[in-house]
Amino acid sequence: MNTSSPELPRRVRGRQQTLAKTRILELRSVHYTHPVRGTEADYTVIATADWVNVVALDPAGRIVLVRQFRYGVDDFSLEIPGGVIEAGEDPVAAGRRELEEETGYAGGQAWLLGSVHPNPAIQNNRCHFVLVEGATPTGRVAWDGDEEIERSTAPADEVLAWARSGRITHSLVLCALFYFEGWRRAQGRNLT
Amino acid sequence: MNTSSPELPRRVRGRQQTLAKTRILELRSVHYTHPVRGTEADYTVIATADWVNVVALDPAGRIVLVRQFRYGVDDFSLEIPGGVIEAGEDPVAAGRRELEEETGYAGGQAWLLGSVHPNPAIQNNRCHFVLVEGATPTGRVAWDGDEEIERSTAPADEVLAWARSGRITHSLVLCALFYFEGWRRAQGRNLT
Repeated sequence: MNTSSPELPRRVRGRQQTLAKTRILELRSVHYTHPVRGTEADYTVIATADWVNVVALDPAGRIVLVRQFRYGVDDFSLEIPGGVIEAGEDPVAAGRRELEEETGYAGGQAWLLGSVHPNPAIQNNRCHFVLVEGATPTGRVAWDGDEEIERSTAPADEVLAWARSGRITHSLVLCALFYFEGWRRAQGRNLT
Repeated sequence: MNTSSPELPRRVRGRQQTLAKTRILELRSVHYTHPVRGTEADYTVIATADWVNVVALDPAGRIVLVRQFRYGVDDFSLEIPGGVIEAGEDPVAAGRRELEEETGYAGGQAWLLGSVHPNPAIQNNRCHFVLVEGATPTGRVAWDGDEEIERSTAPADEVLAWARSGRITHSLVLCALFYFEGWRRAQGRNLT
């Protein structure tokens, strides 16, 4: 999508100002100029690290789920494991790490299912989706500080139905399941 | 997912502090206490309005697409129309409004396909997905300020393939297409 054209010219980025910084993100005001019209404006940009979400299948083909309290919505949320990718860390390695830290599941084959921009309008980061096949519980969870996670597994078809029925509401989890569903269809097999 | 349990108790929200405010969002630090452990911490929360994205089908069953420069990623992005829901505005009405403002397409039947939390960990808002069938170009676009939008249509199957191949990367657009695909399957028809 990297194409600039006379009808849709690339905007020119100017000065950036940090409005606030927290442990997990930096809020910026970024100045842009339109190369043809010459108009200028400041835009809100959330700068943050890349994220990873993991579709982990146990040997029976069940998806590993986590349920935890989420501060953004002040409520519980049913999700797949995931978290922040560390600087220089490979997305697949990060996925394996988050899976084991949050759920104690490890092992099996792992690869990248796909990647998205959580919100290209206002965020600069990507979120990667990792598929792990044949993951088994080793029991070595390592929760961060106040993290508290309820773990479960469910058949893949049930999880996909929950994604479409509103029982799972996290947009990035839905994207991971969207990619997973496409991958499964391409494999021509039913894992439930 | 509103269930608190002895193993996974609901956290108790305390004082909130505004760290920064821009035209489109408010960055907050929110204090939470664990009801059992008594541990306390501050969490980053982005407070913002609800959003809407629109899967609009023309009479031939082609999906209406928009391509525009996105400041978050400093690049162009291929998406479906969408935007911010105004205070008190119905999501379906907001979807029709954004569709017409951005693309000039209007008319037809419209309803809610589904709703998600863009990011329950750090954002308090929802994003709604609206399906419009039989939309036609009336020509009355109304772009905001510096908005510049390239419009096109493509067969639904092609758009779904682009969503899985990485040509479309906006996570909320992928969620809308995930719901659309489920809806289409439930209808038992192929709109391409």
